[in-house]
Amino acid sequence: MNQKKVPSDKLAEFCAACFQKLGVPAGDARLVASNLLFANLRGVDSHGLIRLKIYTERLRAGGFKADARPQVISEQDSIALIDAAHGLGQVAATMAMKLAIAKAEKTGMAVVTVKNSNHFGASAFYAMQAIEHGMIGFSATNAGPTMAPTGGREGRLGNNAFAIAVPAGRYPPLVLDMATGAVAWGKIFVAQQEKRKIPGTWALDKQGVPTDDPNAAANKGLIQPLGGYKGYGLSLLLDILTGVLSGGGFSTHVRTLYQQVASPAEVAHTCAALRVEAFMPVAQFRERMDAIIELMHSCPAAPGVSRIFVPGEIEHETEQRRSAEGIPLNGELQEELRMLAGELGLKPPF
Amino acid sequence: MNQKKVPSDKLAEFCAACFQKLGVPAGDARLVASNLLFANLRGVDSHGLIRLKIYTERLRAGGFKADARPQVISEQDSIALIDAAHGLGQVAATMAMKLAIAKAEKTGMAVVTVKNSNHFGASAFYAMQAIEHGMIGFSATNAGPTMAPTGGREGRLGNNAFAIAVPAGRYPPLVLDMATGAVAWGKIFVAQQEKRKIPGTWALDKQGVPTDDPNAAANKGLIQPLGGYKGYGLSLLLDILTGVLSGGGFSTHVRTLYQQVASPAEVAHTCAALRVEAFMPVAQFRERMDAIIELMHSCPAAPGVSRIFVPGEIEHETEQRRSAEGIPLNGELQEELRMLAGELGLKPPF
Repeated sequence: MNQKKVPSDKLAEFCAACFQKLGVPAGDARLVASNLLFANLRGVDSHGLIRLKIYTERLRAGGFKADARPQVISEQDSIALIDAAHGLGQVAATMAMKLAIAKAEKTGMAVVTVKNSNHFGASAFYAMQAIEHGMIGFSATNAGPTMAPTGGREGRLGNNAFAIAVPAGRYPPLVLDMATGAVAWGKIFVAQQEKRKIPGTWALDKQGVPTDDPNAAANKGLIQPLGGYKGYGLSLLLDILTGVLSGGGFSTHVRTLYQQVASPAEVAHTCAALRVEAFMPVAQFRERMDAIIELMHSCPAAPGVSRIFVPGEIEHETEQRRSAEGIPLNGELQEELRMLAGELGLKPPF
Repeated sequence: MNQKKVPSDKLAEFCAACFQKLGVPAGDARLVASNLLFANLRGVDSHGLIRLKIYTERLRAGGFKADARPQVISEQDSIALIDAAHGLGQVAATMAMKLAIAKAEKTGMAVVTVKNSNHFGASAFYAMQAIEHGMIGFSATNAGPTMAPTGGREGRLGNNAFAIAVPAGRYPPLVLDMATGAVAWGKIFVAQQEKRKIPGTWALDKQGVPTDDPNAAANKGLIQPLGGYKGYGLSLLLDILTGVLSGGGFSTHVRTLYQQVASPAEVAHTCAALRVEAFMPVAQFRERMDAIIELMHSCPAAPGVSRIFVPGEIEHETEQRRSAEGIPLNGELQEELRMLAGELGLKPPF
């Protein structure tokens, strides 16, 4: 089946309609849809429409509570804690980020944690909300255990992820959005299909031994943390700053998106905002950001490298292109959306 | 010359005496000495006494202003900015951490940045000050440019480092203290001496091409960021959160400890503190920390692995051992300390 390109608005409308059919209030449905399409627009397809099917399954099975209302359960000037009541991660995390921004407006800096939540999609979606307020944004989440501590051979930590978004001047905002694993499973599956070896730093076999064989990795193996024990430390600290600190799930208490779809996944998040104006006029900060971005761009390149990027730049350019041309959908995804449309009595978006 | 073990108190006294001879006020001299010995006690010898000689050189040459007084130059409830006036990094960073703790006591969370500073030694020294206050501590610094952005072949970013310290219950505090490079230069020099190849993820040759030859790395090559572009992103973000945000030096404006010893190095730091009690009773948090630490310890191990550690655990055990047995000094370091003692008219500490 051929690839199709479909405007992101139409796809977002379709996602929102799916969620509403499953009991999600209209505003929340649109918010979650916009988070999924945000990922597709930026080329982060792993966090986009490809997740729609499992989201609908968890909504049906009860793992996502469709109409949960997140609530602030404790608060201080620069701190808050939100109970997401097992609802959609996007709804609670958006509330957390808004609250962090409002508090940072007053005190200069604020942190809001979220417990009893679920998969929140692309992390940059939240961190980037700080930018229009002249703030630096931070967002992080834990996830079901798929990595081992260094030396181990069982999942004890998620491929926990975080994003930091920083306003710039004439350049797009600088946005670092990264998971703490060496690589995404997708790259290992591709190597498997193409019968290629993988670098020895990507995965462990089922005994916990580093392997360059993608088949050994895929057979009950694990992803390695990025850069060895440093990535293990980063992943553990993110679990502490989200799950342990919020009073929510951590380590083996968190479930992955695809496990036990009827049960809450016990995911936790943390959002933070830092008011640039507390340090210097925002205009001056933007100039300084442009200067450091230019110092990266102008670095002499290694042979074969045509251009040096800063974090978020490739995603920004993809977003501009896909906003104009639409989101490319492969045959499999088209089929999945058609099936969902049929099940829910909706028209497919193409 | 034989290895000697010397009590850390005696070595700290000696360092402080050296600094005082060079015009550093007594309290500051003791503080900087305690920071160097903190590193040696914890087995992080790269940040310990080995730096004493260059510190004395910079104090003499004026790159470190011996009697500079750091000052708070702007402030909000959860924010402050300190001008270190080109003094010792340890003095300004300690002031920053204290201020972050005092502010977090009131608002729940605070961030203090420092500009016009210098090398601050081991980062964990600051982050760990938060622990006795029932807080999570964070400290970060930038450094002279020794890494390239991904695809580049010239130094544009320091091997920027940060530490996070978290109180636990019956276990020692969890302390992650890491630089953003794949590896320290020391490991490459050892491979060079032993005529061994290095992993292709450690270094670049002078063209910016990854190399497994330690000689090619040492000949005007660069350290690679940890985990490739993710480590580049981390290093860049640390430079933004320290240098760009504080109004201090960043990227190529920062000098390494060994360059131009008569000039200020334009280093910047950021310290932060987060009050655990704002989220839950500290006792409960400590129990939750013990639980996540035990989930790491109890992970089934890979073949050949006898024990799984959490960040900071090896350093804690080294500290206990070295507190009892003394700090091991090799012949070269003994000679260096003797020379310094001679130059400054002091008795060597052994």
